Amino acid sequence: MLYVIGLGLSDEQDITVKGLNAVKSCERIYLEAYTSILMVQKEKLEEFYGKKIILADREMVEQKSDEILKDADKINVAFLVVGDPFGATTHTDLILRAKQLNIKVKPIHNASIMNAIGSSGLQLYNFGQTISIVFFHENWRPYSFYDKLKINVNLELHTLLLLDIKVKEQSWENMARGKLIYEPPRYMTVNQALDQLLEVENAKKDNVINSNSICCGIARVGSDDEKIVSGTIEELLEIDFGAPLHSLILCGKMHFLEADYLKTFAVNVETFNKYASIFDN
Amino acid sequence: MLYVIGLGLSDEQDITVKGLNAVKSCERIYLEAYTSILMVQKEKLEEFYGKKIILADREMVEQKSDEILKDADKINVAFLVVGDPFGATTHTDLILRAKQLNIKVKPIHNASIMNAIGSSGLQLYNFGQTISIVFFHENWRPYSFYDKLKINVNLELHTLLLLDIKVKEQSWENMARGKLIYEPPRYMTVNQALDQLLEVENAKKDNVINSNSICCGIARVGSDDEKIVSGTIEELLEIDFGAPLHSLILCGKMHFLEADYLKTFAVNVETFNKYASIFDN
Repeated sequence: MLYVIGLGLSDEQDITVKGLNAVKSCERIYLEAYTSILMVQKEKLEEFYGKKIILADREMVEQKSDEILKDADKINVAFLVVGDPFGATTHTDLILRAKQLNIKVKPIHNASIMNAIGSSGLQLYNFGQTISIVFFHENWRPYSFYDKLKINVNLELHTLLLLDIKVKEQSWENMARGKLIYEPPRYMTVNQALDQLLEVENAKKDNVINSNSICCGIARVGSDDEKIVSGTIEELLEIDFGAPLHSLILCGKMHFLEADYLKTFAVNVETFNKYASIFDN
Repeated sequence: MLYVIGLGLSDEQDITVKGLNAVKSCERIYLEAYTSILMVQKEKLEEFYGKKIILADREMVEQKSDEILKDADKINVAFLVVGDPFGATTHTDLILRAKQLNIKVKPIHNASIMNAIGSSGLQLYNFGQTISIVFFHENWRPYSFYDKLKINVNLELHTLLLLDIKVKEQSWENMARGKLIYEPPRYMTVNQALDQLLEVENAKKDNVINSNSICCGIARVGSDDEKIVSGTIEELLEIDFGAPLHSLILCGKMHFLEADYLKTFAVNVETFNKYASIFDN
């Protein structure tokens, strides 16, 4: 059996009881460590499980999946994923491969950023399509997400923006030279995301956002060190959200209960009330 | 401290280790039992926790929240929610009330239907706004969700349809007579939802769906008894999805990996291939 187990968002105790029992039954345990990060180290997980963990990078999952799946028709193998098992396409690929090999697969669900943003008080059914923002480079500044954002904004829906993570990435120079040297990991901050949003707005000038648009920054959701702050873009640009991971919500029109809740995280209640868009009823 | 603890979707073992430890530290434990249902009985949870549970119905949560919150500034109180803590507005309301009373609140996240539908293989970031469908009555057949559905369909996005749950509801007759008699619980099936969808399409004739639209029905997600079936509306109308809870996805345009995965649940791969809309690259 291949168990694909969501670890939740914060630390070793966010695994479900079902997930923990499954891990303990496994002979090999892989930890997917490139599409997201947990806030604890591998060693902490190993201690908690009483088991050794193999770190699985992108290369292993995408190119050596048969190594991960070896003998999983006879023994139990765990593939641990931060958040929920179905957070990234590469996991779907691994499960498909297992099914082809007639290996039984059991996903064990958990919280992911896609539902944990409910902590803001904004209702999940008032969100439009989720958008990913990648790090802009000198010569590569993809503005395409702006059109999706525009659709959500015109529909008065909230938008979750997933911020880029670069783990075990090579620089173009090293890749061109065939050198297997990895850059240090990088995680986009709320501030960097807001800067990029404003850059695109200034270039496209389609009035999707402005410096007074109400947003909500969320860092380390679910941990004791969670930080949720709401306010205008201008206000949030001044906030230090601390260690990764960060996520950003651009708020659409709010139900009054959503506004009441989100307001408890406001930098400044007066500006929040001034610029928030709230339904009458 | 008020712990608001997500129980996940299926049984007593879907609680997180963190959630279980929190429950065990609590002097009073409430189970919210009207916006969703777990697939196990209260007694099973009580046995697992080694604690008594108080069932909290809508009336208690909405009108007697101070009873739930009593002394929570001095002792630990747990409010258990099926899925994730922020699945319903009434929970937001309870937490807001706690904050007003200066009671510390700690939400403990878990999987909810909003992210567990990833089990279909459809990527969460390709979904548009989530839509709720309520039971049609003889004189009350709200078609308003159709416009939201149309928006998602035109954007080629997938749509999650949350199907109605009626727990501890009174009939109009009994309410009018002031009789506190509750109707038996009702849970909308995938088939009922599809019937209602076709009814609205036939009335509005806006070509949002037709009998060949590709959908995916999901029942009891996360349990050993989970049932996922994809196919045309016509095909899914013939499928018995069994016990509650059911959810429905109307599929938009798919990435080929999404289609490959969803196809593993197809009633008929030929009709799936014929009617599924798949991106070229």
